[in-house]
Amino acid sequence: MNILLLPNTAKNSHTFDITDTATLQHLHQVLQINIGDIIKIGIKNEQLGTAKIADISPTKVVLSDINCQTAPPKKLPLSVVLALPRPKVLRRLMLDMTAMGVEQVFLVNSYRTEKSYWQSPLLSKIDDYIHEGLQQACDTIPMKVSLHKRLKPFVEDELPAIIANQQAIIAHPYANNSFNQICQRNTPTVMVIGAEGGFIPYEVDLFAKQGCVPVHIGERILRTENAVSVLCGHFLLA
Amino acid sequence: MNILLLPNTAKNSHTFDITDTATLQHLHQVLQINIGDIIKIGIKNEQLGTAKIADISPTKVVLSDINCQTAPPKKLPLSVVLALPRPKVLRRLMLDMTAMGVEQVFLVNSYRTEKSYWQSPLLSKIDDYIHEGLQQACDTIPMKVSLHKRLKPFVEDELPAIIANQQAIIAHPYANNSFNQICQRNTPTVMVIGAEGGFIPYEVDLFAKQGCVPVHIGERILRTENAVSVLCGHFLLA
Repeated sequence: MNILLLPNTAKNSHTFDITDTATLQHLHQVLQINIGDIIKIGIKNEQLGTAKIADISPTKVVLSDINCQTAPPKKLPLSVVLALPRPKVLRRLMLDMTAMGVEQVFLVNSYRTEKSYWQSPLLSKIDDYIHEGLQQACDTIPMKVSLHKRLKPFVEDELPAIIANQQAIIAHPYANNSFNQICQRNTPTVMVIGAEGGFIPYEVDLFAKQGCVPVHIGERILRTENAVSVLCGHFLLA
Repeated sequence: MNILLLPNTAKNSHTFDITDTATLQHLHQVLQINIGDIIKIGIKNEQLGTAKIADISPTKVVLSDINCQTAPPKKLPLSVVLALPRPKVLRRLMLDMTAMGVEQVFLVNSYRTEKSYWQSPLLSKIDDYIHEGLQQACDTIPMKVSLHKRLKPFVEDELPAIIANQQAIIAHPYANNSFNQICQRNTPTVMVIGAEGGFIPYEVDLFAKQGCVPVHIGERILRTENAVSVLCGHFLLA
């Protein structure tokens, strides 16, 4: 946690009461706060800034002098279509993609996605992971995420509007073109990435028919988390 | 597992017996092998190729027609000096850095490294994680890893020889220069990365005195795993 992210309701206040256990624990054990300390904060969907620790009691920390006038970092010009990965990997990916500044994520089904992943209780915690990612990276604007349990209708009916006026690529180990040949930096991009086992040829063709160019990133096949960070990192380092 | 990596002792054989439980499980449950199937293999420190499933019994699978004549993918011109992270993160980082083709990793102590991390039983499994990474990425040449429990002697006595004739950078959120300004692609590089909490200013100065240029990757602060993948990915996509 590099900033404490307050809810949007704090935006017109100068004070705020923190009562949730996880945050109190972090403030006491990691930041080891004392009255009078200044901490870095952000307000959801608003600006970054600071607040002062005004009071500490066993179940509450009171912030005062809330002052947020710094714009959050820009998002990347990047949307990701991601085959739903297994639950533990989903958490880390939501966190990391938020931290890197991905604008939007479409979680889709795929042949190799286990049906049980769609029943995972972790799916209902996606907003928590995004919150964690914002606090990690000092950002205040949540990444948008939507779930699409049926791949073919998503690709045929929704994807065309999503990729209009953007470059669209599908990262796939057995593609003919390389990422470097095809992908321009600093260009709004929709990137499609498979999860464990990747997409099957039928699915790659579905995406390709809509204009997604299959690209590989070399001979090395990376785990999904690793591949997502490498690919998004290209835009971060642009 | 995208290839099955056989020990170097298999290099002059045409047959090999697989008896270890984890591999047998993968062959049966994931690859669902039958007699006559051709599988992708590699021989440690040698080439990539194929073998045939010659026989299947409850505790053994026999490979025949071992034929390895394809060179493994090139390594990246990259060594990483990494503050020892917590054990679960260490496993994934060893796996991912191996998969991406990092040549060498120096695991070092830092002020913010918990002393208990150096006692973790997972430290003795580093070779297993590298093995996993090679099988993931279809590589056969293990990444070199060494442990350095005392940071100052490492930086003052060993690092100069390591960074001779290479560009050396230390990734640090509060650096003045950006990675893009400083880091040239396709150039042998030593990259220094902190773990949870990063390096303290004293440690950054220690590295800087030896010629490591502090660089940031923008306003966003990433988790260690995420940062490592983004930074190494720069060389992978070069």
